[in-house]
Amino acid sequence: MKPQELSSRYRADLDEGLRSIVGDSFLPLYHMMRYHLGWVDVDGQARLTSGGKLLRPSLCLLSCEAVGGDWKKAVPAAAALELLHNFTLVHDDIEDGDHERRGIPTVWHVWGMPQGINTGDAMHVLSRLALLKLEEKGVPPPKVLRAARLLDETCLSLCEGQYLDISFEDRLDIGVDDYLKMIGGKTAALFACSLKIGALLGTDDERPIENLSEFGRNLGLAFQIQDDVLGIWGEDSKTGKSTASDILKKKKTLPVVYAFENAGREQIEDLTSIYRQDEIGEKDLAPVLNILEESGARQYSEGIAGKYLDKALEYLAKAEISPSSKQDFISLAGFMVEREY
Amino acid sequence: MKPQELSSRYRADLDEGLRSIVGDSFLPLYHMMRYHLGWVDVDGQARLTSGGKLLRPSLCLLSCEAVGGDWKKAVPAAAALELLHNFTLVHDDIEDGDHERRGIPTVWHVWGMPQGINTGDAMHVLSRLALLKLEEKGVPPPKVLRAARLLDETCLSLCEGQYLDISFEDRLDIGVDDYLKMIGGKTAALFACSLKIGALLGTDDERPIENLSEFGRNLGLAFQIQDDVLGIWGEDSKTGKSTASDILKKKKTLPVVYAFENAGREQIEDLTSIYRQDEIGEKDLAPVLNILEESGARQYSEGIAGKYLDKALEYLAKAEISPSSKQDFISLAGFMVEREY
Repeated sequence: MKPQELSSRYRADLDEGLRSIVGDSFLPLYHMMRYHLGWVDVDGQARLTSGGKLLRPSLCLLSCEAVGGDWKKAVPAAAALELLHNFTLVHDDIEDGDHERRGIPTVWHVWGMPQGINTGDAMHVLSRLALLKLEEKGVPPPKVLRAARLLDETCLSLCEGQYLDISFEDRLDIGVDDYLKMIGGKTAALFACSLKIGALLGTDDERPIENLSEFGRNLGLAFQIQDDVLGIWGEDSKTGKSTASDILKKKKTLPVVYAFENAGREQIEDLTSIYRQDEIGEKDLAPVLNILEESGARQYSEGIAGKYLDKALEYLAKAEISPSSKQDFISLAGFMVEREY
Repeated sequence: MKPQELSSRYRADLDEGLRSIVGDSFLPLYHMMRYHLGWVDVDGQARLTSGGKLLRPSLCLLSCEAVGGDWKKAVPAAAALELLHNFTLVHDDIEDGDHERRGIPTVWHVWGMPQGINTGDAMHVLSRLALLKLEEKGVPPPKVLRAARLLDETCLSLCEGQYLDISFEDRLDIGVDDYLKMIGGKTAALFACSLKIGALLGTDDERPIENLSEFGRNLGLAFQIQDDVLGIWGEDSKTGKSTASDILKKKKTLPVVYAFENAGREQIEDLTSIYRQDEIGEKDLAPVLNILEESGARQYSEGIAGKYLDKALEYLAKAEISPSSKQDFISLAGFMVEREY
């Protein structure tokens, strides 16, 4: 199953949940949010695209279903996850100075940095207000509070991961452990949270909740590492990223971090002098790719991604959920991590 | 009563509440938050200052006491309000490009814009996590949820107000109504929320909750307008702001907005040509101050501040709280709005 197939099952309800929160206010603050979410263009005209992949909210709803819950009750939480993810993207774009996302200009690039920060802040709040709508669906207040605390703790993990990510920019001494800690906060925590909130809204049995949460965490790690591999060796047409784009952006992704730790002495010196430049140019690509290839960085990264995927599937096997849900998760995980490129 | 006297009553508990949330993590992300809160200097050494005025959390706790509640139970909410206010300051400083706050360099100015945005985001989350600690104090879950929703709705108002504030920067056609809408979201909403959360944690009777909330909203409007007057006519030594500082920053505060709407035609033309410049210099101060004085902008603004203060006191009179709490509120309100300068 592709993510698109999963999200199509839930898309109508998710869209309704998201739109009921982001609303139709005329205040341009909300227009900027609708623009970031891909619903409208800069002038406010509806866009014909189907929007994002809705991966995190879909995993949340599937998780709720998998433990025997009524996924429709979990829609406010799923909407909250999507808004949380998107608020971090709005701020990431400013922090990274990125002018484009998903092929269109970023919010701050259109409306300026101050409005960009404020739009992200507003979306952060809307994520919380979305979650609190669980009460209207009849979820008991103590459980709503548990979900709220989980969402906030996850968001704090995201900020801790983002702190590390930003601080890595000026450093060449990052180890694989540092890197894993960073993506553990930035990417894996939100996947773990998506699965966990869905499950706890569907059952009171703690075992599947914990197992699905750990399934999500390991799947998130595998997904991020696979994304790192694509950021260097993926092809434009399949991934929407240009080949080696992460090298040109000097991103400290796993293959690069690995090479800095494990390449030969001379190669590390070459890498260092390339990464110490203010900018990496096209001419640097071939030597960097050579060093990564020779140091075994690609093989290592793909191996680690596979290891986390295996670990994810082990937790899934222990989760005691319906065979059909398990099959959905397995094919989705395979698609997320081993997608062809 | 001065704000300092009020906060000294609660300071020890508030400090403990805040420190239990911001914690003592070694991750520099938390150091940046402790720095912004005035607890440590850039190198992490404890500062000897007593920190901020703690106006909003003190009003919250006084409100809880005033309706007969146990204010110690409300400390997590008071800490949440202080963190919410401070998160917005961290982001405001970036949005306004301010290099200093309270006489020390701003977070983003020390650690860069990306870390500044992320530190504000983390403080935003901590504000929410602080509030959720109400549950540990024995506050029933439905009430915790009500407080959480109120905090979020208030934060959304802050973002709406901030959107307006930023959008006013490039405009010279702002009316007094636009201005009041902006400070209603940016300043007054948080004062209303501070009083309301305190009251609802102290009683189940909706009348004092609503009256105290409206007392806070009107007090907030009066406070902001008085602050606007001080930003133009206040003296350095008393306010920590340099005289006419808001003019040099081209801020669209009430006296300026009023003059743009109500000064004579020729004066408006002069104001327009001054405010259309990229920067306002010392040489422009005298003409601007003249126009403000002649158009009656100062008298008007002080009159409006007084009107909102009266309205605040009317709501207070209806609040059916203990005479001693009422007296505390009255003297505090008088100090906040009519402080000498």
